[in-house]
Amino acid sequence: MKMLHFAILFAILFSSSSHAADFCVAKLKGAGSPAGYACRMPSKVTVDDFVFAGLGVAGNTTNIISAAVTPAFVQQFPGVNGLGLSMARLDLAPAGVIPMHTHPGASEILFVVQGKITAGFISSSANTVYVKTLKKGDVMVFPRGLLHFQINAAGINAVAVVSFSDPDPGLQITDFAFFANDLSSELLEKSTFLDDAQVKKLKKVLGGTG
Amino acid sequence: MKMLHFAILFAILFSSSSHAADFCVAKLKGAGSPAGYACRMPSKVTVDDFVFAGLGVAGNTTNIISAAVTPAFVQQFPGVNGLGLSMARLDLAPAGVIPMHTHPGASEILFVVQGKITAGFISSSANTVYVKTLKKGDVMVFPRGLLHFQINAAGINAVAVVSFSDPDPGLQITDFAFFANDLSSELLEKSTFLDDAQVKKLKKVLGGTG
Amino acid sequence: MKMLHFAILFAILFSSSSHAADFCVAKLKGAGSPAGYACRMPSKVTVDDFVFAGLGVAGNTTNIISAAVTPAFVQQFPGVNGLGLSMARLDLAPAGVIPMHTHPGASEILFVVQGKITAGFISSSANTVYVKTLKKGDVMVFPRGLLHFQINAAGINAVAVVSFSDPDPGLQITDFAFFANDLSSELLEKSTFLDDAQVKKLKKVLGGTG
Amino acid sequence: MKMLHFAILFAILFSSSSHAADFCVAKLKGAGSPAGYACRMPSKVTVDDFVFAGLGVAGNTTNIISAAVTPAFVQQFPGVNGLGLSMARLDLAPAGVIPMHTHPGASEILFVVQGKITAGFISSSANTVYVKTLKKGDVMVFPRGLLHFQINAAGINAVAVVSFSDPDPGLQITDFAFFANDLSSELLEKSTFLDDAQVKKLKKVLGGTG
Amino acid sequence: MKMLHFAILFAILFSSSSHAADFCVAKLKGAGSPAGYACRMPSKVTVDDFVFAGLGVAGNTTNIISAAVTPAFVQQFPGVNGLGLSMARLDLAPAGVIPMHTHPGASEILFVVQGKITAGFISSSANTVYVKTLKKGDVMVFPRGLLHFQINAAGINAVAVVSFSDPDPGLQITDFAFFANDLSSELLEKSTFLDDAQVKKLKKVLGGTG
Amino acid sequence: MKMLHFAILFAILFSSSSHAADFCVAKLKGAGSPAGYACRMPSKVTVDDFVFAGLGVAGNTTNIISAAVTPAFVQQFPGVNGLGLSMARLDLAPAGVIPMHTHPGASEILFVVQGKITAGFISSSANTVYVKTLKKGDVMVFPRGLLHFQINAAGINAVAVVSFSDPDPGLQITDFAFFANDLSSELLEKSTFLDDAQVKKLKKVLGGTG
Repeated sequence: MKMLHFAILFAILFSSSSHAADFCVAKLKGAGSPAGYACRMPSKVTVDDFVFAGLGVAGNTTNIISAAVTPAFVQQFPGVNGLGLSMARLDLAPAGVIPMHTHPGASEILFVVQGKITAGFISSSANTVYVKTLKKGDVMVFPRGLLHFQINAAGINAVAVVSFSDPDPGLQITDFAFFANDLSSELLEKSTFLDDAQVKKLKKVLGGTG
Repeated sequence: MKMLHFAILFAILFSSSSHAADFCVAKLKGAGSPAGYACRMPSKVTVDDFVFAGLGVAGNTTNIISAAVTPAFVQQFPGVNGLGLSMARLDLAPAGVIPMHTHPGASEILFVVQGKITAGFISSSANTVYVKTLKKGDVMVFPRGLLHFQINAAGINAVAVVSFSDPDPGLQITDFAFFANDLSSELLEKSTFLDDAQVKKLKKVLGGTG
Repeated sequence: MKMLHFAILFAILFSSSSHAADFCVAKLKGAGSPAGYACRMPSKVTVDDFVFAGLGVAGNTTNIISAAVTPAFVQQFPGVNGLGLSMARLDLAPAGVIPMHTHPGASEILFVVQGKITAGFISSSANTVYVKTLKKGDVMVFPRGLLHFQINAAGINAVAVVSFSDPDPGLQITDFAFFANDLSSELLEKSTFLDDAQVKKLKKVLGGTG
Repeated sequence: MKMLHFAILFAILFSSSSHAADFCVAKLKGAGSPAGYACRMPSKVTVDDFVFAGLGVAGNTTNIISAAVTPAFVQQFPGVNGLGLSMARLDLAPAGVIPMHTHPGASEILFVVQGKITAGFISSSANTVYVKTLKKGDVMVFPRGLLHFQINAAGINAVAVVSFSDPDPGLQITDFAFFANDLSSELLEKSTFLDDAQVKKLKKVLGGTG
Repeated sequence: MKMLHFAILFAILFSSSSHAADFCVAKLKGAGSPAGYACRMPSKVTVDDFVFAGLGVAGNTTNIISAAVTPAFVQQFPGVNGLGLSMARLDLAPAGVIPMHTHPGASEILFVVQGKITAGFISSSANTVYVKTLKKGDVMVFPRGLLHFQINAAGINAVAVVSFSDPDPGLQITDFAFFANDLSSELLEKSTFLDDAQVKKLKKVLGGTG
Repeated sequence: MKMLHFAILFAILFSSSSHAADFCVAKLKGAGSPAGYACRMPSKVTVDDFVFAGLGVAGNTTNIISAAVTPAFVQQFPGVNGLGLSMARLDLAPAGVIPMHTHPGASEILFVVQGKITAGFISSSANTVYVKTLKKGDVMVFPRGLLHFQINAAGINAVAVVSFSDPDPGLQITDFAFFANDLSSELLEKSTFLDDAQVKKLKKVLGGTG
């Protein structure tokens, strides 16, 4: 029957076109490449590779920053590999703060799900500060690579969903880059103009040495 | 005094570096280029160019699809120009559906803010369907260019926030591409194998001619 | 002799520069990455890896669409891996049609080798139809990700050569995405507004279930 | 009536989304940018902007190379602006040759429409020659930026269609770069090791000075 | 004469191909786009647009950091627009330091022309410090977006040439981002955990307020 | 104690984010991909992977071109893999010349460390020559893929540092592409218009056959 031929025809015509270019779910164990992780075999991929449940639970904010970042980057959510985006959840208790940080090479867009958040970024050219207190439903964008922060601006828990323009945006928290490693106090003080006492205090807090 | 020199020094050294590469807030009136819209002068940009309030309000779902898409693409939110991402809000009343559609060249990531949503996409290689019912907090990714849809899966309003890997992801709803224009019924039927009656019925619904 | 030194010199100077960046002929058996397949060793590559003979033969159009697509994508022609382009041949018997489809993320350019072809695409913004009957030697471009089709416009066989802006453009035929899989009729009808009879009829034709 | 609402609804919902990102037909008079030419207003674009008839006519091969290149680059075919591809037609009379040349930064794929063509390219790493005589229907790919050539390999006219991975591939013919300008013979001879007589002879042929 | 035809031929054949894609010297006065500045007319471009003399002179290091950065970014050297790279010169007097900074989205490669320099960067993943004292002729690479610094490591003037993977790499010096603007001390202290005294001291040095 | 919690907290929160996206030091033994080489495990990477000492030593110019190119491409300096740049050192004895060549797809920027160099490139559109004699400290940029050369312009050794917009820029020296392989003299003469005697002479010098 002619109709059946139709289906068979395309199966034949395009069977050679069984490419994996639609998606490239990451094999995290592999070595990776500049463009991301190697792809899992498409035949072994299921819908669950494209779904991530980890942002549905509030992060634990019982800590010194009263905040939590729960990432859905490629390392946690291999389905975003090669797709040019990723996500994360921010939880900020009343005193919560996401400290000054950058994402090397990725832009970020934030949507306030609950509460109020004061967020800001600093331009590289003129060191201009762009800061605003955002209410539920507000969106703010943070251009790639620039220093930015988020602080709870009300007396209640705040929640935000953020997306990135890269599956692997990275996260460099200035305090950790400065104080949570073995960079010598001498080099750090010379290159930041921070006082020795300040450096030693924060190194102690963050477990740094040197 | 030496300290003052420090500030002056950098002002001089880097004043020539007053570049706009940090961001490129769109001048929507301009002609645009393959890489996006022309940039507004950085000196005229304020924090409000990076904040968008339009997603805080539920879209009007009193319509035939019982749903609404509220975009924060570059046309609505010029601050995302050149930053590789954008956002939108989906509202689905109990019977709501975002019909089959593609974003030409952009991937999408969805976070369920409220309710339950059955979402799916179809691969191009093997026409495989990847479909799942998502609950509050679940995330799903839809690879670039592939057909996908979202349907309310519970008896209550559902809300989702979606992000895209491009400031201008585009939106091609199959029904509108087929039936909401003057593409002749003859060409449409030949190229879709849909029956004449079906084509004429949906052309009528969607205001198409030919 | 000095002349000899010249040759020897460069052999030494640049031997360390024996890079494979000129090309990256695909190892199709490998896992692939977001940027394409892994490269074969350059020393094992011959000119035949850069030549493809498969488009010299007319595809078999004795089928329901009276047409055939013969791809020279990376899966058939590993030499294009990483080079940003690929090719295919279209054969359309007098009643031939390449049904509505998209290439997720790749643009297409078509050259009519023989016959006449009515071709068109639909924009995503305004659902505008751009349709034209092309004669031998005419060229038409189809922007990335947009729905388009090609139909024989004369009583003789038509042949076209098409190129793509990607080695792995993908091919999503709307009818196959809708009707040639196990997507439930209920979800399909809700998300396309097609009638149940129409859906069931085409599912039967194309071998779909559900 | 509810159906009507459907059409109206989307017109309202997405009217703000009247973006031009689907395509960007070039305004050639403008200044251009690193990503290509500025876009014409989408409302003024018609199907004729996406169709090019210039490749349907054989180029004039009554000249010293017995060959002709007819380009459909962005300068001739503004519709390809921003779409990542372009095309050209090669006509080679029996003694025809497209001399050694490169396309800076674009790969090329060639389809033999008629006749036989001996084509080849040279790798940069090991100066390996990849050369083959192609018959009608054969395809060959030339990796980006590498020296390559095409020569008629039979006693009849040959025709090929070539595509590029860029709307503006450029064309640098080595002979013209060396001999058709005012580069001083001294610098040219030092940098190419060509004999003075050879340089002066070809400068004369190609209109060079110095 | 046939030879003359050769030259004329190509002039005719390729005159339509008088594209500017080879280069795109920046019109700095224009608005810019996400891909860089608009191009000057190629006919008005001379070799001097591709040559920059500003790095031949030592920067003035009689200042608090005993160092100077002299950029050849697109703003100073419009010829690099669209070419994917730029350059700068570093001068460090015996006590000189280029403070902790990032280039949002551009990698850097450094060549020591004179003296000794201790340079380092910090990874975002594990806050690992990669630090080394470089002697004349040593090269070091700093991955895009990561915090890094350079300090004179000998008792004599040091000079380095650095290149970037972007014509407009940007430069965000942490101290200036934190202390040389009107970001409120309260927000700054909350988001950096620096002591109030430290913040106020450096704000005073760098001219910050708030 | 609360402070300790701070450090522990982030270790927990972001330990899952131990990505390698900061850098991707090349495993040269692997197959490579279109985006570059596979990455070494970040835990095995040390600062020495980001430092290259090979450019500190003058190349041996006791050869026919009285010049040497010492590359720090990804093959010599695996740390630049994926970072969008690389470097090389040029040494030119008084009679030294870097012959006409291209880098397929990469732009180059040159800084004169010592001596004087006459450098030039040729545009593809109009075969325009852009040539200039550069003194110590001058910078010149060579747009991607275009023919260019460098010649010592003074009676003393010249040294330059050059950077590229790609970790693997390639290097195609025209003389070697033409004369240092087995490309038949017949094809070469047809495609270059060079005289048979010239071709045979340079083939002999450069070790070519055919």
